[in-house]
Amino acid sequence: MAGGVDRLEQLIREACEQPSMISFAGGFPATESIPQEALSEAALAAVRTRPRMEASLQYCWPEGKLGLRTWVAGRLAQRGLRIAPEEVIITAGAQQALSLTYRALGKPGARVLVDPVCYPGALDLMRTGGATFTRDPARADLAYLMPGVSNPVGNDTLAAHWRTLRDRSCPLIVDEAYAELRFDGALPPLLLKLARDRVFHVGTVSKTICPGLRIGWLVPPPAHLSAFLDDKTRDDLQAGTFAQTLLSGLLSRIDYDQHLRSVHGLYRERAACLVRSLERHLPQLSFHPPEGGFSLFAESGRRMDELAFFEACVACGVIYDPGSRFVAEPEHVPTLKLRLCFSSLAEDAIEQGVARLAAAWARAAAAA
Amino acid sequence: MAGGVDRLEQLIREACEQPSMISFAGGFPATESIPQEALSEAALAAVRTRPRMEASLQYCWPEGKLGLRTWVAGRLAQRGLRIAPEEVIITAGAQQALSLTYRALGKPGARVLVDPVCYPGALDLMRTGGATFTRDPARADLAYLMPGVSNPVGNDTLAAHWRTLRDRSCPLIVDEAYAELRFDGALPPLLLKLARDRVFHVGTVSKTICPGLRIGWLVPPPAHLSAFLDDKTRDDLQAGTFAQTLLSGLLSRIDYDQHLRSVHGLYRERAACLVRSLERHLPQLSFHPPEGGFSLFAESGRRMDELAFFEACVACGVIYDPGSRFVAEPEHVPTLKLRLCFSSLAEDAIEQGVARLAAAWARAAAAA
Repeated sequence: MAGGVDRLEQLIREACEQPSMISFAGGFPATESIPQEALSEAALAAVRTRPRMEASLQYCWPEGKLGLRTWVAGRLAQRGLRIAPEEVIITAGAQQALSLTYRALGKPGARVLVDPVCYPGALDLMRTGGATFTRDPARADLAYLMPGVSNPVGNDTLAAHWRTLRDRSCPLIVDEAYAELRFDGALPPLLLKLARDRVFHVGTVSKTICPGLRIGWLVPPPAHLSAFLDDKTRDDLQAGTFAQTLLSGLLSRIDYDQHLRSVHGLYRERAACLVRSLERHLPQLSFHPPEGGFSLFAESGRRMDELAFFEACVACGVIYDPGSRFVAEPEHVPTLKLRLCFSSLAEDAIEQGVARLAAAWARAAAAA
Repeated sequence: MAGGVDRLEQLIREACEQPSMISFAGGFPATESIPQEALSEAALAAVRTRPRMEASLQYCWPEGKLGLRTWVAGRLAQRGLRIAPEEVIITAGAQQALSLTYRALGKPGARVLVDPVCYPGALDLMRTGGATFTRDPARADLAYLMPGVSNPVGNDTLAAHWRTLRDRSCPLIVDEAYAELRFDGALPPLLLKLARDRVFHVGTVSKTICPGLRIGWLVPPPAHLSAFLDDKTRDDLQAGTFAQTLLSGLLSRIDYDQHLRSVHGLYRERAACLVRSLERHLPQLSFHPPEGGFSLFAESGRRMDELAFFEACVACGVIYDPGSRFVAEPEHVPTLKLRLCFSSLAEDAIEQGVARLAAAWARAAAAA
């Protein structure tokens, strides 16, 4: 969201206030998938006695609570990497892990490997730090990778890069925000295991459970751990104690793998519904059918004013994430692009939303 | 905590694991003062229905939730300043507000006015940003002020500086973390009202309610608002949605001013107990009797190895915050200093803790 509240941002915000609006924006998990009962129980347990309040409402150490760090280490152990919980830093979501890492590593002028369309929160951070972007892993000073499921495309772009990156020594920022959300349940190779001394491993429950707790984690190379803890302390002292306690309580009450399997099914169906609806109503758009995650990235191949099209969409009762935000390098001829999130919409809303997009398209095309 | 987990830090951490240890460290509010029932009710309400879960567990905008921003604006209005809720940014505690501000304002070599003993979280941030410290308001490029109650001394150091700063144009970072915690209930002058265009106003509930929610706020000069929102977004997207919802729910269920009056009484008594105990057992130490806040700062005037004394303390079953961390400028002849927090200790623990400090003093003095 570089540039603050610009006109497009303002439109999105206004649109979000309209109850009848259908929103393909935001990258929200399905609220109905959040384990409500376990969460209620965990919340009550966290404040039930004075010792528990002490543990859940007071300060904790900058690196976070041991229980949650142990859970993160346990998940990595299931994928074949044994690390101590002490090597994990709990962060304020994946974004803070990215921010800490990029501020430590990204020198002005650094050539950063990114996918040509990529997560704006990372692009903005890197641009602000003076990065230039490259698609060539052989020339990168630093790589930003989203194994398993890339955002916004929803495919796995790792293999193509990894052949080259494997033999190089540049640092790798590995963002696994969506990695557990492939519809086929397959996990990507754990790069942290393959290159422990240069992988900055980033994870979160923002997409698998919910983002409102602001819990993520960073596993830096051991040589960086102490400096990163100092940076984290300077930034905000620590991640929320209550949020960590609540999450640990939740994780102890559910079967996380079973939860993942259940949301895989939900999101697979919603993705398929979005694909079908687009093929029917908007054959002008091309996209890669998502293999996981929350979204697909649709390209029109057509030059069309983004703001004008977005205004037409709002008028038709639908919004989405403007594609320009996801494009790493400026295009000579910018074409209209859309990130469409299916994750938080029921199938009838997806179908109706696409019909509204098609109506907006017809309106904008007629005006152009 | 610059330098990561050094020997002193390691000692503190080990000591915290010992159940019989009496800790004057940390700046913790009294757990028994946290409104437990209201918090339980607010937590349950936040997850009771799907719309509520949507509002409390999903993403919110970078600036935070309107309800909480409205509450902050309302508190400022009671002190005579009318601002819109839109001018408030909810942050991950006061520390993030300080971090955002200092990273935006602090140029390398900047001369920053600080109290000679001062909050280490601010000192570390400023040192890392290349600051030099000054005690002279007439020469400062930037001032860091804690009106009402300074940390760690617990007195009001504002008036002496303000006579000079009032007529200058340098930016003022105004940290009100403890401002509502003067034992006499008096609030300091609201500098934000007196100099809206150059005050970066920082507040938090970490000391008045609890720190584990990581909720603070920043009211920057209007010209900085948009850039600060972008910085906040890059750092961690937003403060925790659940923590904000929980806090709003709590604030709607209690009388905050009544709560403040009640903790004023509690902390006044504990401070008086600590003062009496020190006067009885450790007349070697000098200090300013605290006017508010959680701590006093005791100076021995004596050259003594800090690590050796701290080890003696641990052996006697007591810890505190090492004074060296609070000293802005290196001393030619470093003398032993201690921050002693009374806030989270019952009176019998304070008395016993001071007796242990005295035993450690005797032991260290005999060894020296």
